[in-house]
Parts: sequence; C-alpha cells; structure tokens
Amino acid sequence: MATINTHYRKLSAGYLFPEIARRAKAYQSEHPDAFLHKLGIGNTTEALPPAILEGLHNKIEKLGHVDTYSGYGDEQGDTPLREALSQYYTSFGVDIKSDEFFVSDGAKADAANIQSIFGDGNVIAIQDPAYPVYVDSNVVSGRTGSFNSETGRYDGFVYLPAHSGNNFIPSVPEEKVDIMYLCSPNNPTGAVMNHEQLQSFVDYARTHKAVIIYDAAYSEFISDPSLPRTIYEIEGAKECAIEINSFSKFAGFTGVRLGWTIVPHQLMCENSEAGELHKLWNRRQVTFFNGASNISQAGGLSVLTERGLSECRAVIAYYMNNARIIREGLQQIGLEVIGGKNAPYLWVKSPNGLTSWQFFDKFLTECQVIVTPGSGFGPAGEGYVRISSFGHKEHIEKAMLSIVKNLSV
Amino acid sequence: MATINTHYRKLSAGYLFPEIARRAKAYQSEHPDAFLHKLGIGNTTEALPPAILEGLHNKIEKLGHVDTYSGYGDEQGDTPLREALSQYYTSFGVDIKSDEFFVSDGAKADAANIQSIFGDGNVIAIQDPAYPVYVDSNVVSGRTGSFNSETGRYDGFVYLPAHSGNNFIPSVPEEKVDIMYLCSPNNPTGAVMNHEQLQSFVDYARTHKAVIIYDAAYSEFISDPSLPRTIYEIEGAKECAIEINSFSKFAGFTGVRLGWTIVPHQLMCENSEAGELHKLWNRRQVTFFNGASNISQAGGLSVLTERGLSECRAVIAYYMNNARIIREGLQQIGLEVIGGKNAPYLWVKSPNGLTSWQFFDKFLTECQVIVTPGSGFGPAGEGYVRISSFGHKEHIEKAMLSIVKNLSV
Repeated sequence: MATINTHYRKLSAGYLFPEIARRAKAYQSEHPDAFLHKLGIGNTTEALPPAILEGLHNKIEKLGHVDTYSGYGDEQGDTPLREALSQYYTSFGVDIKSDEFFVSDGAKADAANIQSIFGDGNVIAIQDPAYPVYVDSNVVSGRTGSFNSETGRYDGFVYLPAHSGNNFIPSVPEEKVDIMYLCSPNNPTGAVMNHEQLQSFVDYARTHKAVIIYDAAYSEFISDPSLPRTIYEIEGAKECAIEINSFSKFAGFTGVRLGWTIVPHQLMCENSEAGELHKLWNRRQVTFFNGASNISQAGGLSVLTERGLSECRAVIAYYMNNARIIREGLQQIGLEVIGGKNAPYLWVKSPNGLTSWQFFDKFLTECQVIVTPGSGFGPAGEGYVRISSFGHKEHIEKAMLSIVKNLSV
Repeated sequence: MATINTHYRKLSAGYLFPEIARRAKAYQSEHPDAFLHKLGIGNTTEALPPAILEGLHNKIEKLGHVDTYSGYGDEQGDTPLREALSQYYTSFGVDIKSDEFFVSDGAKADAANIQSIFGDGNVIAIQDPAYPVYVDSNVVSGRTGSFNSETGRYDGFVYLPAHSGNNFIPSVPEEKVDIMYLCSPNNPTGAVMNHEQLQSFVDYARTHKAVIIYDAAYSEFISDPSLPRTIYEIEGAKECAIEINSFSKFAGFTGVRLGWTIVPHQLMCENSEAGELHKLWNRRQVTFFNGASNISQAGGLSVLTERGLSECRAVIAYYMNNARIIREGLQQIGLEVIGGKNAPYLWVKSPNGLTSWQFFDKFLTECQVIVTPGSGFGPAGEGYVRISSFGHKEHIEKAMLSIVKNLSV
C-alpha cells in the first residue's frame, strides 16, 4: 500500500500566480474591452540578440551532421561553458575553478534541489519576503511544521523580515540557524546587499558552521560598481556559500533554460569531510539530472563572448530604463518605492494601510494594471506590491500613463 | 551547524561508467596505437533528421523576433506538445488526456524525482539488474539501509531478479511491496514484457494498492506488434501506474533533452484522495522545475508529426540493424545472447563462469571493444555484459570483426 509524501499537504494554499490569473480573468470577462497591462510576472519579453541566435543556429547545424552530432554531455555541463563561466567570474576579480561550476537548466531547479544534499534536521532561515521556491522545497522535504495561517509562517523556519526599518536588508539571525537563503538583488524587493551586509552573513556562517545559499539570479542588473556581484567577493565565502545564478534574466533564457550553481571545493559544514559537499552536489546531479540541453549550452557560450555580453547587457539596459520610467511615475503620484535601481523589480508600499491584495485590486480595477501582491512572498510582504520592469517600453509607458492618471492614492 | 544528508554515504562505490572509463584509459595509455571500439554507453550517434532540424531552427527564428519571442512556458509543457503526445498515444489505442502529460527535460530526472511524492516508509521493489537511478534516488532519500557488499544489495529494497530461469522477466513480488520500478524494453537486458506479464504486475498493484513506475524509454524500439508499447494498454493500469518516457533514444535527443511522464487522474494509493497523486506531481514540477527548454519542445513537436515520426523511425531501424549485426556475430562464436530484437541493448552471458568485469576485460584486451559489465546494474547482472547497438554501422561492423576474430570463448 503505497503512501504519498504528506508534507505536500502542508503547503499553504495555491501558488501566487494562479490566483492573480484568476482575478485578471474575472475582471476581463466583466470588462471585455479593457486592455490589461501586465507588470506582474518577471518574464522577459525582448528578442534574443543576434550573437546568441547565431550560436543556437550553429549548434543545430552541428546536430544535423553525423560528424559534428553529439549526444549525452557531462551532467555538470560542457567544459568550454564551465571555462567561460570561470572567465566571467574572473572579470569580477573572483577566482572560481571551472570544475566548481555545475551547469543546470536554470536557477529555480537548483534553488529547489540544493536542500536535498543537507540533512533533515537543519534549521532553515528565509528572508521574508522571499521567492517561494526556497520555502516550498523545504516544506515538502519535511523540514518544517505546519503553516500557521495567523502569522503566515511555517513552524520551524526562522524568518528574517525585510522592512523600511532595516532598509529592506535583514540582519543576521539572532538565534542559531544552519542554512540561510539569501537573494541579492532581491526578488521581490529589488534591494541589494552591500559588501558589509554580506560580510556579516558570511561571518555568521563561519562562526556557526552554517551554509549560505546565495541566489544571484539578478546580478547582471547591478549597475552600481560598489555593490558585490557575487558572494565570492566576500572574504571567507568559499568556505560557507553556494551561489546559484541563471541565464534567464541575464540573456532572455527564461524559456531556453540555462543556469549554474557554484559549490566550492572548500565548502564545509558540521559533519562533512574536506571537499565532500562539492562531491555530494556532483553525485546529486549525476543521479537526478542528465545535463542541460546542449543547444541551450551553446547559446550560453555565445552569451559569454565579448559580443554576446555586450548585446545582452543592452537588453538589460532596456529593461532598466523601463524600471526608471516606472519608478519616476510612481514617485510622481507620491508612492513609496524601493528597488528598480540595481534590480528589475520595484517594491511599492500600499497607501493608507491597504493590504497587498487590496492594492492589487486597485491597480486592476482603477488602472487595468496587473501587479504582484507582496504578501504572496511572505508575511513581511503584506502591504506591498511588486512591479516588474520586464516588458516592451511602449507597454510600460501606457501602463504608467494609466497609473498616473487613474490610481487614487 | 549545517549537516549533510548522510544517506549519500550509503551509495555503493562510484557510478559504473567512471570505472569503465578508467580501465579504458589505462589500456589506451599502455597501447597508444590501439583503436577502442565503444559498445558500452547507450548514447545516440546519428544526426538529427531534417524535419526535426527544421522545427528547431524555426523556433530559434521565433526567439529572434520580438513579436514571436516567448519566455517562461508552463512547467507542465507547451499545450501543443502535450496534445501531440496525447495523439501519439491514441495511435497505440490508448486514451491519455493531454493534461496527464508532464513534459520534462528527460526520463532520467523524472525517474529519479518521482519517488519524492511518496512517503518515506514505502517498500520499494527493483528489477535486478536495473538502471541505477531507481536505486540511487531511493537510497539518498533514505528508504533503504546500508549496502551489503556480500550480497550486492541494499537492505530494505525488494529485488526481483531476472535470469534465464524466468526468461529475464521477473514475476511479481512474493512479499508485499508499495512501489515497483519496471523498465520494458529493459535496460540493461533488452527483455520486453508481454501483455500477460505486465497484466500480472498491474493486478498485483491493484490488489495491494501499490504503484508501478513504468519506464518505457525504449518503447519505440519494439517492432513485434504483439508486445505492449505502453502500460496503459493493460486494463486497470491508469489506477496504479505512472509511465515515464523520453525523446532521447526515440529521436536522438540525448543531448537536446526532452521527455515526459504520465500521471493519470485516476491514479490512487493508500492515503491519497481522488486525483491527489496527479496534483502532487504537478505541484512538484511547479516547485522544482521550470519547464523543458522551449527549443527542445519545438523539436519534440516536430518529432510527433507524420514526417518526423517516419524520419526518427528510420534512425531507429538503423540502430536495430546494428543490433542484428551484433547478435549474429556473437551467436556465430557461440555466445548466449538475449535482447536486441525489440530493444537496442543485448545481454550477453559470460562464458566459462567469468565475472562481468573479467568478461569486460577480455573484450577490452582481446578485441579492443568496450562493453558494460552487467554487475554494474545489480547483483543479478553478475556474469553478463550489456552491449549497446548505438553507433555508426561501420564502427559496429569493425568491432564485430574484431570480436569474432579475437575473442577466445
């Protein structure tokens, strides 16, 4: 008599985005002529640049000829791509060996799966608000108690709330935790940790033999040169941090699927031998994964050329110009906004004590604009919405015209 | 103080293929002029056919234009591909709804991850020999005791040995088990279950509320029309079976990465509500996966057209002709061979009581041919080697000439 993994039943309600889709659909059916401006989901919209297209087409050509066809690659990723990633980090003054990179089909899978190489008993710290995958992957793996609908928290997690009192950068935990998920530039708040803040987490981790899971998926959106682009700019980070990153927002690969995770050889925890965590992630990947698509990997290799980087960064600049338009529009009508300077997301405070969903409904019904309720990212997100700067400039401008004209604040 | 998942330490020795590579490399360095014929790993070698290349190139064209660019797709796969898969099953007389298909980046990941929606306490039955992923994924998830190097078995699994006495098709377990992994056409033996044999497993599962994980990754290699192509040809299978399949060997997508898993709405187990297992796998995919590459999915859609199927099946026929050449050559020198008729693998009995590794070494040193030791797939594989028919015909012919001429049996 087979039984299910009942930890799945602990997951609170549905995922955020289906509920957004439901409300948008209901509104649309009542207002069939309304045009809905979508500033909710962080999904890329601009075409892949020429250098990348060339790399992708070339790979397909190769797959079409028996002499250049290739089948299974290494689960860890193609060597030239791992070497190019190592070079890419060199450009930030950081030395990561090519065999410390594990190429994947994207940051989401790695962020969800990384917990599986750690024991069940670890206490997990989560920034609040946070990308739901960190939370849900640990819930279904049995590391929490039930969801408490009063507090919006799962028993057993340590929450690190971000709020205006700490400039949306939580401090290190007061209690002892074992694994900490950090995301910078942050999804959803758009806040970015500086060297000092990140150093305090690395120091905490080294003191307590904790491990940091550092999600840097938006690092290419950092324009301020004083901000760290990778956690390995911080002294001691190789002993205590795993970094996860992605080509999704970097190069428009949200659908193409490609990412990477760095597990340094030096990484250690309480009961691990030297190099064991690196080997465990390797064993995990070799057992549960069969490598990212060789076509996507060829595309990734093109991204990391001088021409590819320059073309991809032009697209990022395009999105960041959208972010500026959004920020200026919202500030014009007196809203409190953070993010959108070194991150594609803006975090907007609801006026007059409205809840996230009330503010969401206001955007929808008054302006026909879809945003993302901050409460969907954790209890500290209540009273905020997230606005995404991914989209065509003309659409963003129209949405902002509607907001500036119609939103009653 | 973070701790590792110590179940990883239970994994027996290294993976099979690194050890093969080590021995081949050692031989090559002692015999620098020798040409090694590789009949070990089941890796596709022939070019992607024109219809598939066209589909792939077209998708990349679309990604290069802002009006046809697409980012994130549904985690479950693109609707047209799920509908095409449903049609593909209709051609075998089986009705599977398009929303019962979960498109993935390949069968390996699904075969490894599927256990995660089941509880820790389930007793797992494994065919012996078997694809190591079924075993290892359950070991690291904590469903077994230690590896017993005397028996070659993990404590806690129920092994279903395949041997000449049962024509390499194990019978249903004598004891009560909760989850059974079945692979047909079988990797590594090449044996294929008939309707009656498969019905006995479905009957067992329904009686004991067990769940079958049915790996059909080689189903396109079945040419005998009397053999089941999918477990859903068997009455009652939708209540008790999950089927996993792949474009890897079907369409040369070993590097492109694309597969699918079917979790029927009717699937039930002891503590699940109606439809819950389907929903759990959906939740698992939505949380841990972000969809297969949209380029690979476009390729998959081309595979499932009339032209695509015909071109891919021509490549399969090419590999199956290799299988015939191998089988006839081995039989010519008096070796006992099974498989290779409705499967790309041949399972060859070691002569004179040699172990698998001894027979492997004989192939390597006498014939310069690399095969795969059967013992790497489980203790019942001892005394056999697996030979793969994937390769260029000219290479296969040369390897067989060397075997027929040089192998002392």
